[in-house]
Amino acid sequence: MRDRLTIIKVGGNVVEEESSLKSLLKDFSRIAGNKILVHGGGKTATILSEKLGIESKKVEGRRITDAETLKVVTMVYAGLVNKNIVAGLQALGNNAIGLTGADLDLIRAAKRPVGEVDYGYVGDIKTVNYQALNELLNSGAIPVVAPITHDGHGQLLNTNADTIASELAAAMSYDFEVQLIYCFEKSGVLMNENDESSRINEINPEVFGELKANGVVSGGMIPKLSDGFAALNRGVGVVVITNPSGISEGLRGTRLVLE
Amino acid sequence: MRDRLTIIKVGGNVVEEESSLKSLLKDFSRIAGNKILVHGGGKTATILSEKLGIESKKVEGRRITDAETLKVVTMVYAGLVNKNIVAGLQALGNNAIGLTGADLDLIRAAKRPVGEVDYGYVGDIKTVNYQALNELLNSGAIPVVAPITHDGHGQLLNTNADTIASELAAAMSYDFEVQLIYCFEKSGVLMNENDESSRINEINPEVFGELKANGVVSGGMIPKLSDGFAALNRGVGVVVITNPSGISEGLRGTRLVLE
Repeated sequence: MRDRLTIIKVGGNVVEEESSLKSLLKDFSRIAGNKILVHGGGKTATILSEKLGIESKKVEGRRITDAETLKVVTMVYAGLVNKNIVAGLQALGNNAIGLTGADLDLIRAAKRPVGEVDYGYVGDIKTVNYQALNELLNSGAIPVVAPITHDGHGQLLNTNADTIASELAAAMSYDFEVQLIYCFEKSGVLMNENDESSRINEINPEVFGELKANGVVSGGMIPKLSDGFAALNRGVGVVVITNPSGISEGLRGTRLVLE
Repeated sequence: MRDRLTIIKVGGNVVEEESSLKSLLKDFSRIAGNKILVHGGGKTATILSEKLGIESKKVEGRRITDAETLKVVTMVYAGLVNKNIVAGLQALGNNAIGLTGADLDLIRAAKRPVGEVDYGYVGDIKTVNYQALNELLNSGAIPVVAPITHDGHGQLLNTNADTIASELAAAMSYDFEVQLIYCFEKSGVLMNENDESSRINEINPEVFGELKANGVVSGGMIPKLSDGFAALNRGVGVVVITNPSGISEGLRGTRLVLE
């Protein structure tokens, strides 16, 4: 039987407010076995951009990354957010190591071709160095991955953290029984975004189509769910969308299923 | 016979200007065998602090680190500078991995006690996890270390990069024949700072005392040389101060010696 690997992607306020981050890290530190944390940091990046007079642009929840914005997200994601998470996990006895896609050539990407939208320095993932991740996990390390990749020619790129989590989960599912958890403020995908009791417990691709059509699922939630289904299609065992307390409560949340 | 380990600390304009950084990374990538790069990034941090309206304070070349400055140096050192170096080395076929002292609990420090000066969130190094560094080197990785440490209780700290290089060199000298190279703009310690031909080829502790007394050595050069002598006293074989071309020219520069 393959070992289990839990990959948790945290974003939104969960990772960017000190009290909720502390609570998340406690829950994460209690997860037994192999685990990887993937984080965002977009709100802090937006605030820093504003302070520096750099305009933040988004299209369908995806950030447009010009040269100055790339510097900001590299500083915030790979520096401020990543290293505070690592120090927080170390304090809880978890042997965390912070990484971007450039470190150990972990995630190589290609700058997205300019189409209807020019996303700037945004990277579409080409390869995941699962051997290097495997070695780190075998040595007892807990990778904490910031959403920055590289092109192998010296250029850093900005890659969506949901997509990184999905790609890592898919690549690691050759060697592990992977469960992928998207963790944010809400307890799952809600029929009514202001009513936590309206959580949808299970979504298959057909239901996903309906939820998009009737506007229940919109904005950044669309690529998040697409990333989740992509992971399932590539051998990931479990994909759940939940909030931090959903992790400790036996993965209560919205489960993605293929049928 | 023990393997050789080359530890290079780069700072000043060398690491912060794109053209000189590229050239340094080429020289570094050609060094055979085990190697570690330790970098600074103070000028970029000062510029970012200014843009954000945070005042930069220094005493004897050491930065005073308040809470906001700690955020800035974490972003600049661990994010922007570190990851650009890592991506640059990966492009040159060097399997770089960017690290702070928090990652893998590599460098644990204690917040400096408030004495005549309150240095703020500045860390004095307590332990170096040489086993973790050893494992990384054995796996073929090339550590790129940013001058950020942690206290083991979740607090990141700012630690001088020269001191980090010295402490890493001393800790690694149990297992390796270590040569420690301080690399900056000038070809070594100069009798006259504007005359590259006035380089002092060798400095022992007695000469160091004289150079301090007559003001030839001042500011940030004093702790740099102290760090170098500390490394020699703790088993490091070679300590040289030079510029990037000095590395490729058989370590031409100022050599520190104990007698």
